[in-house]
Amino acid sequence: MSSRITIREIAKRAGVGTTTVSRVLNDHPYVSEDKRQRVLDAVDALDYRPSQTARHLRGSPSGLLGFLTDDVATTPYAVDIIRGAQDVAWRHNMVLLVADSGKNPQSADAALDVFLEREVEGIIYAAMYHRPVELPAALAKAPAVLANCYLEDRSLPSVVPDEFGGGYSAVETAIRAGHKRIAFINLWDDNVGVTPPFPAIYGRLRGYRQALTDHGIAVDDALVRFSNQTPPENYRLTRELMALDARPTAIFCGNDKIAMNCYSALAELGLRVPADVAVIGFDNIAHIAEGLLPALTTIQLPHYEMGRWAVQYLMDRAQGEGEPPQVALPCPLVARESV
Amino acid sequence: MSSRITIREIAKRAGVGTTTVSRVLNDHPYVSEDKRQRVLDAVDALDYRPSQTARHLRGSPSGLLGFLTDDVATTPYAVDIIRGAQDVAWRHNMVLLVADSGKNPQSADAALDVFLEREVEGIIYAAMYHRPVELPAALAKAPAVLANCYLEDRSLPSVVPDEFGGGYSAVETAIRAGHKRIAFINLWDDNVGVTPPFPAIYGRLRGYRQALTDHGIAVDDALVRFSNQTPPENYRLTRELMALDARPTAIFCGNDKIAMNCYSALAELGLRVPADVAVIGFDNIAHIAEGLLPALTTIQLPHYEMGRWAVQYLMDRAQGEGEPPQVALPCPLVARESV
Repeated sequence: MSSRITIREIAKRAGVGTTTVSRVLNDHPYVSEDKRQRVLDAVDALDYRPSQTARHLRGSPSGLLGFLTDDVATTPYAVDIIRGAQDVAWRHNMVLLVADSGKNPQSADAALDVFLEREVEGIIYAAMYHRPVELPAALAKAPAVLANCYLEDRSLPSVVPDEFGGGYSAVETAIRAGHKRIAFINLWDDNVGVTPPFPAIYGRLRGYRQALTDHGIAVDDALVRFSNQTPPENYRLTRELMALDARPTAIFCGNDKIAMNCYSALAELGLRVPADVAVIGFDNIAHIAEGLLPALTTIQLPHYEMGRWAVQYLMDRAQGEGEPPQVALPCPLVARESV
Repeated sequence: MSSRITIREIAKRAGVGTTTVSRVLNDHPYVSEDKRQRVLDAVDALDYRPSQTARHLRGSPSGLLGFLTDDVATTPYAVDIIRGAQDVAWRHNMVLLVADSGKNPQSADAALDVFLEREVEGIIYAAMYHRPVELPAALAKAPAVLANCYLEDRSLPSVVPDEFGGGYSAVETAIRAGHKRIAFINLWDDNVGVTPPFPAIYGRLRGYRQALTDHGIAVDDALVRFSNQTPPENYRLTRELMALDARPTAIFCGNDKIAMNCYSALAELGLRVPADVAVIGFDNIAHIAEGLLPALTTIQLPHYEMGRWAVQYLMDRAQGEGEPPQVALPCPLVARESV
């Protein structure tokens, strides 16, 4: 068994008194920001967690949070939402109950039953791709927060990726490398109607257009394609773009899988990345982005950060009421070798 | 809230009496295999779970299982171990507490503290790649089972992939397609000494050799290479193999990432997969294997099945004592278009 870190050790490391440590750990307001930060740094460095007993004395009932996902299995890289949630839960001495409803509404109801039976103090509902959701009614029986999804009526707090900003920064990266003819192979879904509800599709497209416009480059719709995301179609669209009279010198791909097939098409045409054509992905799926030759410059989805934000919101929620916040977190550029 | 399925509904669907249903659910031995299967099918179809109250009446204390992983973050596809564990836990009305120690022994100790404080009824320790492990001493304080890893002294039950069988079936697939010169770009790790401890490396190599031998094909060590798994090295080794006088007509890659770079090297040489060279991967990482053109024939790691087995073992453990079982589950072939 590990020996428990004590408040005394934290106080010593932070150079403050034990009362200050106790105040910081209990979110007491009368602590200077400087001392608060030193205590939190010491807590980090020593990997301190208040004991279960202490937590009970402070009156928190179950110490449990429920984490319900729609389908982590088919999008394993989104598991970072869970990891981010766990890291913050851990810091607050909360334990995460994780359930995967597999998109089966009956399972979601049953998982919520279990959460409520065990008196969870809050519920995180996470979608594995960014989309509007309809939620089981039982979710309303505990404080809830949505990660990577949102309600159309915005009646629950949500945290999602800033798709617009991600698209914008992908295109701006190509522009800064000197490109002016920048194609976009966007996501599409054959099952989607005329107005697709997926923010990844229209958000990134808006970012693409805005970045071009802001840099004085005319938007050319011939350079924008939509893929049903099958490998042959990704490949075909790349060939089609490269057959244009005024062909692109850079291709922004709606995800890393499209970029992978884009590489194949370019290789078969004898074109080198990035010397002949720059390629930028989206998602930063490590297996693909780090595995491609050359390694893929791409945009990171803030899965880990969304998980953190969601749990932090539940922990903080007593501090403020009002409209449920709808937060979009940045999608940072991961620069590698393809631009 | 979902309405609870009752034992009566299960009995009706299965065409048996409620006593039989009750016996099956409580693992009572006096039930015919046929009836048992019908009840289990009905349980599946109706997504039945015994209520929390009923479980308590049967005397199970916490209803919790602890699931501790070393680093799910860096190998997201292994998250299926968690999914398999959850599915079986769910059936037994157990909830999984999931903690990721991030390879930090202090975190592992702290997670075990939390598990024990909450009186988990058992602990699953899962490694994200198959290897021998050393475990925190606190693990001994609850019934424990290891998934995708094992103790050198075999003092705890373990479930791992059958690496030998996976290698064997990959090579046999190539042989059945008519290949005789089959290369193997095996995994390697620069940090590993003369005798690497990783069963993936030597198990798959034994499978490769045995399959050739069993089919009367002489093993040619010139066709076996080891990669440090960087993309440039995977690429270089493929070029090297294809520069041999008697070059291979099939390449078995130690994982799907190697196969991805192998495809690139072959494309640049103007060689088509599988018409000129067949390629077989290992791991079945969906993003890669389904995304490559042509789609990759590969070997599936039994992550989901290991998770299931581990929890099932904990649920069954009262039924038998003796030497802790050391189980290797099959790695099935996933046939696509590259052989």
